Amino acid sequence: MKTEFEFLSNLKQRFKLNNIGDDCAVLPKDSETDQVISADLLVEDIDFRLKWTTPEFLGHKALAVSLSDIAAMGAKPVWSMLSLGIPENLWRTDFVDEFYEGWFKLARSTKVELIGGDISRTPDKLVIDSIVGGEVDKGRAVLRSGAKTGDVIFVSGSLGGAQAGLNYLESGILPDSVNIQSSLRKLILRQLKPDAQTTLGRILGERKLAKSMIDISDGLSSDLFHLCRSSNKGARIYADKIPFDVNLTKNSSENLDILDLALNGGEDFELLFTADRKISEKFFREISTALKVALTCIGEITETPENIELCVNSTSRTLIPKGFQHFAKFNE
Amino acid sequence: MKTEFEFLSNLKQRFKLNNIGDDCAVLPKDSETDQVISADLLVEDIDFRLKWTTPEFLGHKALAVSLSDIAAMGAKPVWSMLSLGIPENLWRTDFVDEFYEGWFKLARSTKVELIGGDISRTPDKLVIDSIVGGEVDKGRAVLRSGAKTGDVIFVSGSLGGAQAGLNYLESGILPDSVNIQSSLRKLILRQLKPDAQTTLGRILGERKLAKSMIDISDGLSSDLFHLCRSSNKGARIYADKIPFDVNLTKNSSENLDILDLALNGGEDFELLFTADRKISEKFFREISTALKVALTCIGEITETPENIELCVNSTSRTLIPKGFQHFAKFNE
Repeated sequence: MKTEFEFLSNLKQRFKLNNIGDDCAVLPKDSETDQVISADLLVEDIDFRLKWTTPEFLGHKALAVSLSDIAAMGAKPVWSMLSLGIPENLWRTDFVDEFYEGWFKLARSTKVELIGGDISRTPDKLVIDSIVGGEVDKGRAVLRSGAKTGDVIFVSGSLGGAQAGLNYLESGILPDSVNIQSSLRKLILRQLKPDAQTTLGRILGERKLAKSMIDISDGLSSDLFHLCRSSNKGARIYADKIPFDVNLTKNSSENLDILDLALNGGEDFELLFTADRKISEKFFREISTALKVALTCIGEITETPENIELCVNSTSRTLIPKGFQHFAKFNE
Repeated sequence: MKTEFEFLSNLKQRFKLNNIGDDCAVLPKDSETDQVISADLLVEDIDFRLKWTTPEFLGHKALAVSLSDIAAMGAKPVWSMLSLGIPENLWRTDFVDEFYEGWFKLARSTKVELIGGDISRTPDKLVIDSIVGGEVDKGRAVLRSGAKTGDVIFVSGSLGGAQAGLNYLESGILPDSVNIQSSLRKLILRQLKPDAQTTLGRILGERKLAKSMIDISDGLSSDLFHLCRSSNKGARIYADKIPFDVNLTKNSSENLDILDLALNGGEDFELLFTADRKISEKFFREISTALKVALTCIGEITETPENIELCVNSTSRTLIPKGFQHFAKFNE
């Protein structure tokens, strides 16, 4: 069966789609501004399960995943179109009202205006297509392709939590389970109600701090690979520098492979970006403090295309991208 | 069960969505241009059946339905985002390739650029979300709300064909059935591979000929009702002026209720617009000749809000909107 890469590569070639392949599409807006647009399709029983989540969490997540794409371009979100395909049994309940409550709560806090969309019936599964448009100074959208050899690689926040949360959900633990540990609940909520790095992304763009950027939706190994491929570079990262979700270590009794979760777990919706080595670490520490978001340097960009080296203690090995794949995504 | 109108009205009120409710959302672009954006969700076994259509027809239709929304704003289409949710059995075939062939053929002829989208897996049904963006001179988007008492009401092309085609499909007749009459096949293709009035819509907008406009996707009775409600006006239309699809009359032996098909059948994707009575009929005839699209005056706008009068011979009755409804559509 063809992979997403083969399909997308074939499509781009056949139809000469040269502008496809970043977190968002970039379009000229006016003389000072470009527009960025992202689409994210979320399908019941593929991307979420109704028995695990609440309508509010799902509404929040539907917007958050697209906000994360906008942030990854260094842009500011502005508007959204929301298409919902709804089975009749859900339409007969308060589900959609509660879904919008969750969606609008996040939209208000990020100043996103709902400008349109479509609501349709489906035979059985809920389907959500979230379209978000944003703005960025002309020519300043941060692409995946801007990494240079020697750039340092940063990651925001912490990694591995959302995948651990998914694993717990799959094992039957729900966020409202009786006697659930607080740290475990936080991991599950990281999966069900993720936050996008909206402010950080915009600031990294506005201040020209990120030379290349991508959001970590498929997993660090896959998304770093996407960034390297677009930039025609490689990377070296250090296992001991990767910022694990603090709640993972609190649940270490359960024998989690924390490094694997952080490397290959998806949906943390953190930002992965590269920066000029000359920008002082102190400067990033100040931004980190001001925004209350951890910014961790995990490695550097290297010359060899698409080769990612993972250093663990004193040894190193090639890191194979193992994150989540659908079939394909134009703007991942 | 709540209707689409109740739901949308409630949503608009709860979240103060004042800018929702036309064929497209309108956003400022630059000092001279506004942007219009449409979203159309098409769901397998609700909006189409795979056993009736071909992947190429479906790709064509997915774009055409959104082009029709752009045309109804008097705008020119520019870009598209396409989100596809694909079940694995289709992914394993050439279906998606052929779908894109149909999509791109229409995109090339209408100069629409594919700028992004998402491809995701679904458990079983194919889902398509078609987003198209267009441009129009600043402040010149033709809204549903611009109709004035005394305006004449025009409809482009002909009506009823797409619904008749759907009825034939439902009765088991396919476009490649043996010995199918040419007129019957044309009706079926009107349903499966509709054309949008892209050039006409743009010209009606550019030349300021349409004061209000909507595309006929749900059916004349429903779409005229939408237009009247937005304009806070009523309408009087004449049954003997409605332009029936010529292929309907060729199949009249089958006892079709042609007036009902033309009034309440959906998906003809013609344009319904109102114009100042002072613009000469000759002028519209010239445009009609130049574009090779029939333009028929079917009635006039009246003062009484939401009251639509249908004149049949020398009698008249109130026309109740009976066209297609999903649950709701923000931008219909």
